Amino acid sequence: MNLGILFGGSSFEHEISIVSSITMQKVFKKTNLVNIFVSSDREFYLIDKKDMKSSTFSSGAYKKCKKLQLQKGGFVITGMMGAKPVVTDAILNLIHGRDGEDGKMAALMEFNGIPYISPRLEACAMSYNKLYTKFFAGSVGVKTLPYEILTINDERKITTPLPVIIKPSRLGSSIGVSIVKDISELDYALDVAFEFDTDILIEPFMEGIKEYNQAGSFTDDWELSIIEEPHKEEFLDFEKKYMDFSRDGTVTSADISPELVNKIQDSFKQIYGTLFRGSIIRCDFFVQNGEVYLNEINPIPGSMANYLFDNFEDMVVNLSSLLQKEPKIKIDYAYIHSIQSAKGKA
Amino acid sequence: MNLGILFGGSSFEHEISIVSSITMQKVFKKTNLVNIFVSSDREFYLIDKKDMKSSTFSSGAYKKCKKLQLQKGGFVITGMMGAKPVVTDAILNLIHGRDGEDGKMAALMEFNGIPYISPRLEACAMSYNKLYTKFFAGSVGVKTLPYEILTINDERKITTPLPVIIKPSRLGSSIGVSIVKDISELDYALDVAFEFDTDILIEPFMEGIKEYNQAGSFTDDWELSIIEEPHKEEFLDFEKKYMDFSRDGTVTSADISPELVNKIQDSFKQIYGTLFRGSIIRCDFFVQNGEVYLNEINPIPGSMANYLFDNFEDMVVNLSSLLQKEPKIKIDYAYIHSIQSAKGKA
Repeated sequence: MNLGILFGGSSFEHEISIVSSITMQKVFKKTNLVNIFVSSDREFYLIDKKDMKSSTFSSGAYKKCKKLQLQKGGFVITGMMGAKPVVTDAILNLIHGRDGEDGKMAALMEFNGIPYISPRLEACAMSYNKLYTKFFAGSVGVKTLPYEILTINDERKITTPLPVIIKPSRLGSSIGVSIVKDISELDYALDVAFEFDTDILIEPFMEGIKEYNQAGSFTDDWELSIIEEPHKEEFLDFEKKYMDFSRDGTVTSADISPELVNKIQDSFKQIYGTLFRGSIIRCDFFVQNGEVYLNEINPIPGSMANYLFDNFEDMVVNLSSLLQKEPKIKIDYAYIHSIQSAKGKA
Repeated sequence: MNLGILFGGSSFEHEISIVSSITMQKVFKKTNLVNIFVSSDREFYLIDKKDMKSSTFSSGAYKKCKKLQLQKGGFVITGMMGAKPVVTDAILNLIHGRDGEDGKMAALMEFNGIPYISPRLEACAMSYNKLYTKFFAGSVGVKTLPYEILTINDERKITTPLPVIIKPSRLGSSIGVSIVKDISELDYALDVAFEFDTDILIEPFMEGIKEYNQAGSFTDDWELSIIEEPHKEEFLDFEKKYMDFSRDGTVTSADISPELVNKIQDSFKQIYGTLFRGSIIRCDFFVQNGEVYLNEINPIPGSMANYLFDNFEDMVVNLSSLLQKEPKIKIDYAYIHSIQSAKGKA
């Protein structure tokens, strides 16, 4: 099978997407990977396996690779002899942040009738914006932490008691995130967050709260990963997360009770529901006093959280064979015909 | 100025989009319209002004028109001599329902760097799905009617007292909508709604509730239409709404108190906020006992609600000149460089 790996994008997380895609070269052992890079100016390039190393991108050498066009049915190489298709059975959307997680790639693939592994457009919108994630989680009965919202033109006043955690509404990978313990730190933290977004989310920062990550997918049945308790200091800064995106080993399950495992798995299934069909996501949960809270949905997790699965490759191949397209809509011009005949023009 | 009119799409509302686009030919008097049709199989065609009549589409004659490709910067005609650009200063997204209102066109335009009038991707997601509209309205302090949700695999039991109105979550133009006054009608109404969506919304049907429509946009300032009290029987069925999409006259303002005008305008501004920048939308409100409730957001209203504006054309031209693109993200490969130097590969 030929699996397209779509990575890069016009995103603050462009570089970690490159790291994720390089990791995929090691993770997939039986599958032929077709690496499609989206440059920061949103051109598509076909990258040979031998060039799948970070220097290809940081040096600009990718510009000498074959340029691709996206058209109905898939990517093509255009040239003097017409368009030559780049054969992919499915595309794995591995663009973190803008372009990938905001729904653009989903829209491009869906519109062009290309099978793809990724949250669909609506699922992207609900997970890319952390405020909407809270609405959505509430609607499927999953708790989230209390919060307040500040937009860029609001007065810089908050009501949540310190310490608080400050996050841009629409970014992942801890970019622009700060913990504010003293009110004197607030202004700078807001400056940082507003550099990345016009809306920011303020939540209570719970010292010592337990965090657990659950990844999974639905193929012909649930495919749930082990539950990991991520190692962290206060929280992972960008550089540490960055290194984290190149993980390809395996980890051990969190040492938690079967009851808590069930609660976390149930919460994951509620979130994934039908909205996230076609995707592999990771949900990060907080647990306090036995209650499970959704912290965030990673709609396109770093290196797709391969290290949490027994057999990531088989799951991807299985999912690829089960991808659904939007239902066809039959257009028969019945209304136009009836209006025409009413007007005597039929 | 050259304004692209993008219409059609793979949508249950394909035909009403054609009607809307034909109406635009009369509404724009000074602007050169470039008509771009999206066929039901999602090919783009350039339609000459003389062919902008319903029979071009219902007869299939559009297939003889020039085919377009969408690429970075805009649409092009490809041929033996290479790609010839189709010049547009901005694109007006006039695709109702799927493809247009679900965010796909917004994603395609944004990704390709084409200025466009339409709700952006996130705004589409929040207005296309009526459940998400309720979350969003609540978050900006605008009331909506109480509701319950039924998904296709749920038991067919409802708790809202009759009469109720049953709507597919993701469609406009009253498609699949029924009023259920007697419990014996419920099953058939659900069958109809589930033909169009996997999720449906059930709301109390308020006999005699007042309805008011407010359209508007934000250019360099608010551009609000008059407020219309739509004539209706119980509600407009599809065929009547269909005819409604060809309106190009003007209507008179609803005869309501200045206080109610203010309340409706304020609610509109809250909804439009920053989320809907770049678009012209119509909000349909209910009023009961002086309270204003948002019924729905029409992210791409029929014939863009031109008949509610004093000078629709000037507003569109003004908005076209003020459209914002996503902020550029500078990618300097700083992290990759720092990792490379840590590994001694720099």
